[in-house]
Formats: sequence, structure tokens, C-alpha cells
Amino acid sequence: MKDYLSMSKEQLHSELHNLTQQYQEYKAMNLNLDMSRGKPCTEQLNLSNELLNIHQYIGENGFDSRNYGMLAGMPEARRFFAELLGLSSMDEVIVAGNSSLSMMYYLIDLGWRMGYPDSPKPWRLEENIKFLCPVPGYDRHFAITEYFGFEMISVPMTPQGPDMDCVERLVREDASIKGIWCIPLYSNPDGYCYSEETVQRLASMTTAAPDFKIIWDDAYCVHHLTDTIYTTLNIMDECKKAGFENRPLMLCSTSKITFPGAGVAAIGASKTNIDYILKQMAPMAISFDKMNQMRHVHYLKNKEGVLAHMKKHRAILAPKFDLVKQIFTQRLTPCGEIAHWTDPKGGYFISLYLMKGCAKRTVALCKEAGVVLTNAGSAYPYGIDPEDHHIRIAPSLPTPQELEVASNLLCICVQIATLEQLLRK
Amino acid sequence: MKDYLSMSKEQLHSELHNLTQQYQEYKAMNLNLDMSRGKPCTEQLNLSNELLNIHQYIGENGFDSRNYGMLAGMPEARRFFAELLGLSSMDEVIVAGNSSLSMMYYLIDLGWRMGYPDSPKPWRLEENIKFLCPVPGYDRHFAITEYFGFEMISVPMTPQGPDMDCVERLVREDASIKGIWCIPLYSNPDGYCYSEETVQRLASMTTAAPDFKIIWDDAYCVHHLTDTIYTTLNIMDECKKAGFENRPLMLCSTSKITFPGAGVAAIGASKTNIDYILKQMAPMAISFDKMNQMRHVHYLKNKEGVLAHMKKHRAILAPKFDLVKQIFTQRLTPCGEIAHWTDPKGGYFISLYLMKGCAKRTVALCKEAGVVLTNAGSAYPYGIDPEDHHIRIAPSLPTPQELEVASNLLCICVQIATLEQLLRK
Repeated sequence: MKDYLSMSKEQLHSELHNLTQQYQEYKAMNLNLDMSRGKPCTEQLNLSNELLNIHQYIGENGFDSRNYGMLAGMPEARRFFAELLGLSSMDEVIVAGNSSLSMMYYLIDLGWRMGYPDSPKPWRLEENIKFLCPVPGYDRHFAITEYFGFEMISVPMTPQGPDMDCVERLVREDASIKGIWCIPLYSNPDGYCYSEETVQRLASMTTAAPDFKIIWDDAYCVHHLTDTIYTTLNIMDECKKAGFENRPLMLCSTSKITFPGAGVAAIGASKTNIDYILKQMAPMAISFDKMNQMRHVHYLKNKEGVLAHMKKHRAILAPKFDLVKQIFTQRLTPCGEIAHWTDPKGGYFISLYLMKGCAKRTVALCKEAGVVLTNAGSAYPYGIDPEDHHIRIAPSLPTPQELEVASNLLCICVQIATLEQLLRK
Repeated sequence: MKDYLSMSKEQLHSELHNLTQQYQEYKAMNLNLDMSRGKPCTEQLNLSNELLNIHQYIGENGFDSRNYGMLAGMPEARRFFAELLGLSSMDEVIVAGNSSLSMMYYLIDLGWRMGYPDSPKPWRLEENIKFLCPVPGYDRHFAITEYFGFEMISVPMTPQGPDMDCVERLVREDASIKGIWCIPLYSNPDGYCYSEETVQRLASMTTAAPDFKIIWDDAYCVHHLTDTIYTTLNIMDECKKAGFENRPLMLCSTSKITFPGAGVAAIGASKTNIDYILKQMAPMAISFDKMNQMRHVHYLKNKEGVLAHMKKHRAILAPKFDLVKQIFTQRLTPCGEIAHWTDPKGGYFISLYLMKGCAKRTVALCKEAGVVLTNAGSAYPYGIDPEDHHIRIAPSLPTPQELEVASNLLCICVQIATLEQLLRK
């Protein structure tokens, strides 16, 4: 044990000296590693290559998926995603292009430009539109609302989901708050799962805005890392019970099931919203890529097939998560209360929390030694982590060997940043 | 010869009686045929099935197209489309999703929402935005500008392209005219090709709007129906010469080369515009489907490969166009000056021009007998053909047998509508 918090200045200097030497050794290795994004590794991509040999392009309705038409998607693909999203009917689903992110962009754009069926007017015509952002959260969510000029209001994340006292108070008072970003299962970046109470409160809360939308990004709905199949309550069921079926806009995709660059994405929503969205999409698109929909449905078959496929991903991913956590425990725990990290049971990320003011310095040190992490602050609106203490770790892309090197280096950088901070006090 | 225009009322009645009997016979056949859209037929779709056996997913730059990234497209795909669009560098190309229509929607949306680098302000903040629509034209073009609230100003099409005297006068005077829709080669629906003079005048004309855009929808750039490879002057070359390189936004796709539901689309523009568009796209997309880009490039290889492939389409399509024109000649020519039609050397459509006031009635008669045509007026802004005289014929989808039946029925409907009209006078 060498608890940094009880060390003398001299001891801190000596420790910093030792670690700086270790850091220089890593630097001399000329590393070039990327732990910045939730990108699957090559081994994971190879799991789905069989998909490419499926040439079933005539749909169950006799429709040739190679030709124009069927904007809402092939019926078998709509049913497939209805099951994944836990929706009762394919009428509540649009199977769109490759990217759920692009669909979220479209849905925010649509609210801003035209509004939704329950909107008094398009959001762009409101005085000052706002969106709730549980923090830490997903940088690309925040980038969309920033791009469309929303004021982003941070709401603290807890292991049970967003702080619902805070959410309820804000949305009850302020009609210019038009929605909230949610990743309900294995949240990005903490890996938290929304509790039953959180989902029920989100579904039933009183909102000043009649057209309040929950963007329910179920990005990791089948991305389990343990034997336990975690789930959340279904937001659509709960919203229907509460009489707010037009509140949720659900998203998922096969990006991290098959191919991130060439998967299939889907929107789930009330029939009212789906009909509205399809009508609004008509000037934009004749149809999305239905051949890819057919390939995916015939390869993965149904949710059971998806879960079986996801076990192969888990076999590759879980050891990587374990390795990172193990190295954190070995390297950082002995230093006392200088850092803690989440222990996700699924998803793609680990949150690493440092002492206040240490995140940017740690990321910069890593970068200088050839290991790219997500920018410090990127999990916060406008890229600003007020405490400069959070780093998102993405263990999927590097090989285990690379990951071991990168994690050890990361720990050294955390230690150096912490020591520097303690020495400034 | 039975020239309708020189017939007596009695003769007209007698002719109408005969044709109505023939019409009833067709009606009794319970037809269900579609000549409404430019959809390739099954035989054409089958031409590209080999594409599906291509599993080359690692790019020339070593990038794995199965994973996230490379928003502008794989370099080999960018080069491929640069050649198709006649651009000198892949830096002038974004290879996007499946649909050039979706990209045109995006480009209009972008101008409306944000403006372009040369815009004084976003188009939506202008008093009254307008767009020039050569007529007859493509209904889906007009649907986009209508959706975004542009006032659409009709400009007459001629066999050499839009009436340039009219275009030049309008754009010189009115800064709220932000662009023009163009299909330069084998235009939809007439099949006309822009002359050298037209392209030069479009490229060099003085526009009151500093951010005037030519949407250059090169949908039929390789879709030849004869031995002659028609071309137009390259709009980018001409715009560069005139000092307006940011004026054109070029589009093309493989929709009618490979699979309409699952092809690849591209945007061509000046490097300034491409850089701007990519920056604006960043919140919307991580990347488009690059696996499909790779399949297409490795299957079609280059423009030479595309042209060889298009000969197979021509072998299926040209006889269908010939059949329709032949039946028109046999049935309609003897009736005198009641109709004329275009003789396209490429593309997907024939324009059929009737006596004033006869188009809607003809389309309705066809529909009643089970043959769906594009709605009369659909080739005009707001769906209104002021003379109610134009019908767009799409011969690609039906089989030759179906096409023969449908064309004969169509001629009978034209004759009936014309006789009714003459009897009203």
C-alpha cells in the first residue's frame, strides 16, 4: 500500500520520479493504440461474415427487396425489430438505413423543423429550446442537440438511471424542455441499467411540454457481458399505461451485432408517430436498403438467434473488460482513493473517475505516449466536465496484448496526473 | 387515315362508340399493370446478382469497410464516382448511402437550414425563397422543394435543355431564386439532352443570389438506349472556367445500374462545398455503408465496366421503348395531330403530349381498366399541368407482352379522351 493521500511532499516527489521513468519507457515503445471509440475488433467483425452468403431477396410478401419501394421496411424486418424492441406490432416500427445515430439526428431534426403530432408548433419556433442530458452520457447524442441549437441541461446519472427527482422537477416547470436522451441498458459510458422505478417515472411524469420526447437509444439491448440477461421495463408499455404513448422514440441497430459500417437500424414508436414520420420521410426517401434488411433477418432470424450470436461477441469482449478492470485494481487500488471505475455487466464502456482536475492531464499524457482515449469531457454537454474527472474507456478494439500495455500505461498516467495535482495543493 | 380534327360530329360519335366497345373488352381482361414509375424489371435486377458474391471488404488503404468510419466513403469508391461524374479528384466526391434522392433532400435541407459557404444567411431566413423547375420535370425533385416551402417557378424545357433566355432573366433579377433542378442527360420525362450552349450559359450566367446552386442530377449519365453515347459538357469544368465552381451540386447513383433499393449514391461538388458538407454531416452520420461501396466498385470496376454492364440493360430496355413508340405510331398517327411523343435516346421515360385537357381523363380511363400511369400533372410543380396535356410513360417494369396490351389500351384511352374533348367543342 502506498496511499497517495497520506504521503508527504517528499514521498509524492519520489513516487512521481519513479513513475515518470516508467512513463518514459512506455513512450520509447512508440505505441499507436486506440481506446477512444466503441469500435468492435476484427475478430468480432469476422463473426458475421456468414451473413454475406445469404441471398434471399424476395420477401414473405413477394416483394423484391432489390427494387424501389416499401419505405417502412420489409415486413419480416419490421417484425424482427419489433421483437428486439419489445413492441407488440410491426406497425410501431420503421426499419431504416444503417445507422440509429442518423435516425436520432432525423428525429431531432424533425421535431426542430416540423414538430410532432402533439407539438403546438415546430421546436425551432419556440423561444429557447432545451434538452435533458444525463451525464456522463454519449457525446454523439449531445453533438446532435448542440448542432440544432438546443440548450443542453445536465442531469446526474445514478446507477439506477437519471436522477428522477431532478428530471421530474425540470420537466414539470419548463415547457421549453422538449426531451431527454436515454441509454436505458448498459448506459454509455457507465454501463448502468435503468431501474423499474426510473422507467415508470419517466413514462408517467408530468411534463409542461405536451410534445416531450424520450429518445430511448437501446443501443446495447442484447449486449450482455455476463450470464445474467439484464433488462429494463419496456418504455412503450409503461408510457401506454400512463397514457403517453407518443412520448417515446425508440432506437436500436445491429451495428454492434453484425457490422458497424453496414448494419440495419430501426425506429420504434406509437403508430401515430410512425405514420407521421413515414409521411414526413416521403420527400426524402423512396426506400432504405431492404436487401441488407433481408440478409440480416435471414441470418439472425429472431431475438433468440441474436442472443446466441451475442454470446460469441461476449466471449471476445468480456475478457477484455476483465483485463482492464484487473489492471486498474492492481495498479490503482493500492494508491488509495484516487480513482474508481464502473463494473458494467454489458455494453461497450467503462467509466473511470479520477480526482478532480486529473482527467485532461491523464488523456494528454496517454496521447503523448501513443494511446488515444476519448477526449476528457466528451461525455458531458459542450465537452465540459465541470470536475475534469471522467474518462471513458473503450476496451473493444485493441487486442488483449495491446490492451494490457495500454491499460498499464493509462494507470501510470493517472498516477502521474494525480501526483502532480496533489503536489500543487 | 381518320383525322379526328376534320371529322364531323357524327363521325366523332361513331368513332367514340367503336372505341368504347374496344375499351370495354380491355376492361373485361381485369388487367393489373404498372407503367407509373421508372422501376427496372426483374430481368434487369438479375443482371447484377453476381455483385452479391463479392466479399472484398478491406480497402486499398487497409481500412476495414465493415467497421465505423470514413464518412466521405472508401477511396476506391470516391475515385469510381469521380470518373462517372467527370471530376478530376476524389476530393470532389462524397460516396453516401443508397439514394441520390436522399442526398438531394439533404442538400436542399442544408441550404434551407444552414446555407452554403457563399450564403449571406440560411435560405429559411430569406423573405421568400424560390427554385427554378424546368417543366415537365421530375416529381420527386419538386416534392422536395415544395416540402421545404420554396416557391417553384416553372421554366419551359426544350430539346436543348431549359429555356435559357428565361432562366437567365429570372436569376439575374431575383436574389431569392436559390437554384435550379437539372437532369442534364436523357431528362426525366422528355429524354432531352442539354446542349453545349445550355451548359455553358448555366455555368456562366449572372445570378443575383451569390449562393445560387445548380442541382445537377445526372441520374441517367450512362443509361444509353442507342449506339450513340450521348454526353453533355461537364458542368463542373464549365463552372470552374466561369469562376463559379461552388455553383454545381452533382448527383448520381447506381440505382438503375445495379439495384434500385440497394445501390450506391454520390455527391460531386467543389472541394470547398465537399469539405463544408462533410463538416455539416458529422453530427448525422459516422459513415455510410462502405461494404456496399466495395461490392459495387469491385463488381463494376470503372466507367468502362459500367458502360459494358449498361449494354445488358439496353438489350432489355430498348425493345420496350421501341414497342411503345411503334404502337403509338400505329394507333395515334392516323388520327391526325391529336398527340406527339418524345423519342429518347436514353433514360427511363417517354413524354406523351395530348390535346389540351385530355391528360387527366386518359390516365383515369387507364386506371379504370387496370393500367396505372403516373398521375397526370405529376411532372409539373404542385402537380398542376396548366394545359392538362402531358403523360409520362415508364416502359421498364412490365414484360413486353404486358407492355403491348397496356400501350394499346393507353392509345384507346387517348383516343376516347380526345373524342370526348372534340365533341365538347
